[in-house]
Amino acid sequence: MPYPTKTAEALTSLRRRFSQIADLSQIGGLLSWDRHTYLPPAAGESRGRQSATLDTLSHEKLTDPRVGEWLERLEDAELQPEDAALVRLCRRKYDRAVRLPAELVEEMADARSQAQDAWLEARRQNAFGLFAPHLARMFELCREQADRLGYEGHRYDALHDEYEPGSSAARISRLFAELRPPLVELVHSLAASGQDDRDAVLHGEFDELRQEEFVRDEVTRFGFDFRRGRLDPTVHPFAQGIDRSDVRITTRYRRDFLPTGLFATFHEAGHGMYEQGLNPRLARSPLGDAISLGVHESQSRMWENLVGRSLRYWRGAYPRLQALFPESLGDVPLADFYRAINCVKPSYIRVEADEVTYNLHVIARFELELALLDGDLEAAGLPEAWNSKYGELLGIESPDDVLGCLQDVHWSLGLIGYFPTYTLGNLMSVQLFEAACQHIPRLEEKIEAGEHAPLLDWLKRNVHERGSLHQPDELLELATGSVLDAGPYLRYLGRKFQGLYQRVGSA
Amino acid sequence: MPYPTKTAEALTSLRRRFSQIADLSQIGGLLSWDRHTYLPPAAGESRGRQSATLDTLSHEKLTDPRVGEWLERLEDAELQPEDAALVRLCRRKYDRAVRLPAELVEEMADARSQAQDAWLEARRQNAFGLFAPHLARMFELCREQADRLGYEGHRYDALHDEYEPGSSAARISRLFAELRPPLVELVHSLAASGQDDRDAVLHGEFDELRQEEFVRDEVTRFGFDFRRGRLDPTVHPFAQGIDRSDVRITTRYRRDFLPTGLFATFHEAGHGMYEQGLNPRLARSPLGDAISLGVHESQSRMWENLVGRSLRYWRGAYPRLQALFPESLGDVPLADFYRAINCVKPSYIRVEADEVTYNLHVIARFELELALLDGDLEAAGLPEAWNSKYGELLGIESPDDVLGCLQDVHWSLGLIGYFPTYTLGNLMSVQLFEAACQHIPRLEEKIEAGEHAPLLDWLKRNVHERGSLHQPDELLELATGSVLDAGPYLRYLGRKFQGLYQRVGSA
Repeated sequence: MPYPTKTAEALTSLRRRFSQIADLSQIGGLLSWDRHTYLPPAAGESRGRQSATLDTLSHEKLTDPRVGEWLERLEDAELQPEDAALVRLCRRKYDRAVRLPAELVEEMADARSQAQDAWLEARRQNAFGLFAPHLARMFELCREQADRLGYEGHRYDALHDEYEPGSSAARISRLFAELRPPLVELVHSLAASGQDDRDAVLHGEFDELRQEEFVRDEVTRFGFDFRRGRLDPTVHPFAQGIDRSDVRITTRYRRDFLPTGLFATFHEAGHGMYEQGLNPRLARSPLGDAISLGVHESQSRMWENLVGRSLRYWRGAYPRLQALFPESLGDVPLADFYRAINCVKPSYIRVEADEVTYNLHVIARFELELALLDGDLEAAGLPEAWNSKYGELLGIESPDDVLGCLQDVHWSLGLIGYFPTYTLGNLMSVQLFEAACQHIPRLEEKIEAGEHAPLLDWLKRNVHERGSLHQPDELLELATGSVLDAGPYLRYLGRKFQGLYQRVGSA
Repeated sequence: MPYPTKTAEALTSLRRRFSQIADLSQIGGLLSWDRHTYLPPAAGESRGRQSATLDTLSHEKLTDPRVGEWLERLEDAELQPEDAALVRLCRRKYDRAVRLPAELVEEMADARSQAQDAWLEARRQNAFGLFAPHLARMFELCREQADRLGYEGHRYDALHDEYEPGSSAARISRLFAELRPPLVELVHSLAASGQDDRDAVLHGEFDELRQEEFVRDEVTRFGFDFRRGRLDPTVHPFAQGIDRSDVRITTRYRRDFLPTGLFATFHEAGHGMYEQGLNPRLARSPLGDAISLGVHESQSRMWENLVGRSLRYWRGAYPRLQALFPESLGDVPLADFYRAINCVKPSYIRVEADEVTYNLHVIARFELELALLDGDLEAAGLPEAWNSKYGELLGIESPDDVLGCLQDVHWSLGLIGYFPTYTLGNLMSVQLFEAACQHIPRLEEKIEAGEHAPLLDWLKRNVHERGSLHQPDELLELATGSVLDAGPYLRYLGRKFQGLYQRVGSA
């Protein structure tokens, strides 16, 4: 039965408005990609202004009182489930936008820009003190933001929910409580084996053009579609989905260390394939967007780790890599290479961490940002708290703050509540991979043969095409039959790394 | 004396609105640059949609009734000259925008997109018939557009004025009547010399990376600022000024023919330096924009021809070029190289034409588009009329329509009244260069020494920084003391080419 005229009209208007907002967001994506790839050095200020103007227009379109009227009319109507889901998503975006007064939004933008500059300067001088007052102000503004947005449990939830709908500080605390002790123990036991130079073969001389040739070829095999995407070099790798037909991934190559270029590219290709796999039927609708940062990270980790750091994958791919680097790798057996790319070692920098230690970096940040938000920790006290936390979790203390609490850009941008999504992604990647193994006959043999289409198709149907039709937990349950659970991930790590380290120990 | 409150408020509102519109236009510039450089092949449709959404928003901002109210209030007030000029410019933009009904704008956009596709297909199949109905429709829509916009003299004026404020069909006709006979005669007399293989030394094997190295170095000497700009390869070279801090030029290199890459880059660098030289004080105001396509072309032609095809310039630069291409150019004397880059030869393609024949290509198009607009020529009759016109002017007839009336993209985009600006630019470039020679002691010696700053500074002060403060004719008069005049240009061509050809003839 068709909707009554008033309902149909409101729905059409709502859809049209949100597709216009989607176009603006795509344009913003291009501005951002360009800023990090090809923008001339002196053009930063003009780019900032262009982005700010675009944001203002987008905000005007979103907070237009007519949007509120359409939503109210539709909330009173009986709708098909998908239309009802659309209305809920639009309501969420509308409410979040109208609850933040323009002055606060401007103040945040201003504080962010100052904090960014201060962060860069503090890093340059290795002087945390330059950044501390900006960090304090950023947390203060985020507290106000959270209070404006509203929350039921913890103030953190209002911020975290932006990145991971339906999640909460309580949920993350429970998960991390499960992960913390076994991870700490695993790291300690592996570290105790004293085999931390097993990645020596990956240090050497690796021509960047050959690296690019290799990863371009491999991510094409994974299924990244270069007719609908690009790969460019940058300083801090990222993926930017502009439209499902225009997905841009970036990477960086280190001439003297091979893994950087390999795994950054695999990782970003995973993000990119999620964006390329979004549902064309839901294009330009909030329903068609990627649902959360955690789910996004599950896709990057899938290709980086579950595929890209697996023995099965390298059985097929390693000869291709050796052919490109005969001098450095010709004499290195596959087993040694595999051990080298899976070397576990407590280290200072999160983005360079291995699969086992990575989540301890995240847990540290979560515990610290909660304390900063609650006021239990002063900004000025962060370096000390950071080192004590790293001592507890990883048994190390950073020699300076650049390698310590100044390493991440997130807090200077006001991205609070973001870090836990990295670990959520790691957990989900294993649950999804195990479900895929159950549904796809001989999946690991196919990966060895370089046949990645069955895995990508399964992810497309079960994750990508579902867009934002379901909350992350529901999506995971539909795909795997289970809700989020630390168990599979911990078992996977145990299996893989105890095996790997024992094998060497006994070799 | 400060303005009364109401006036000051209206002025502030008007300025703020037009700076927002300027930001949107900058963003549109990036979308367009990216489309022609790095856009993935399958992303054309999404890019078209993003641009259309941006245009719609910009149009909404411009035609907002409040803009009309601010203008009326300001037109009643006594304003400083610069503020009055701003109000006139904004009025012009506002009127043009509100006079075109949304349906016509949409119909044009639709017709343009279809005509583009048909044009490409007609070129692919060498079948003008596929394009003819679209061409007819485009001229019909342009007639309607002109009637809506209004005009005093000829319908053509309403369209031409968009590209060259203050100019008209009558003015162009007068100028072209002066140019036509001497140009036809000069071409015929040079062609009669039978020396049309003098560019043979430029055909050969020229590594593209070395070409890029050379032009990048040369345009840096000219004064193109790579901190505020980029140079990228593309198919059809263009310059895109996004902001004065972000000016992107593009070029293409032919491995087998050196001039393409050299002169395309010099040309676009000329456009680019105009954009980089715009007045920072007038940034984001219509007053700060480049005033017209003709003036823009005078800057590209200045560096491409007056500098880049001059003997003086190559006396300094040729050894640098020879050093990069010792095998192809090592044994070619400067005099031969100079004759080769100034070879005059009637040819089919405008963008590849030499300095002498170029304007005849433009005159042909002007006469044809006038006939098409007046209805004196049917779209279906264009190929025949084209060939007859080329016979008259250049003594050649194109073997097919791809080399004939299908060669330019302009009409398929509805850009009618655009072509004459190329010739206006040629004329102005000579008048400006001669004025610069009068004002800058030993300018030509400086060019030989690679010292281009005095010329660029003079152009900055006399052209670039004046933005849109003056109409093109007024700007030219301020800079040179004369209004637009075909005389200097004709004398320049005569001097240069009769000299060049006689010298060879007598050698």
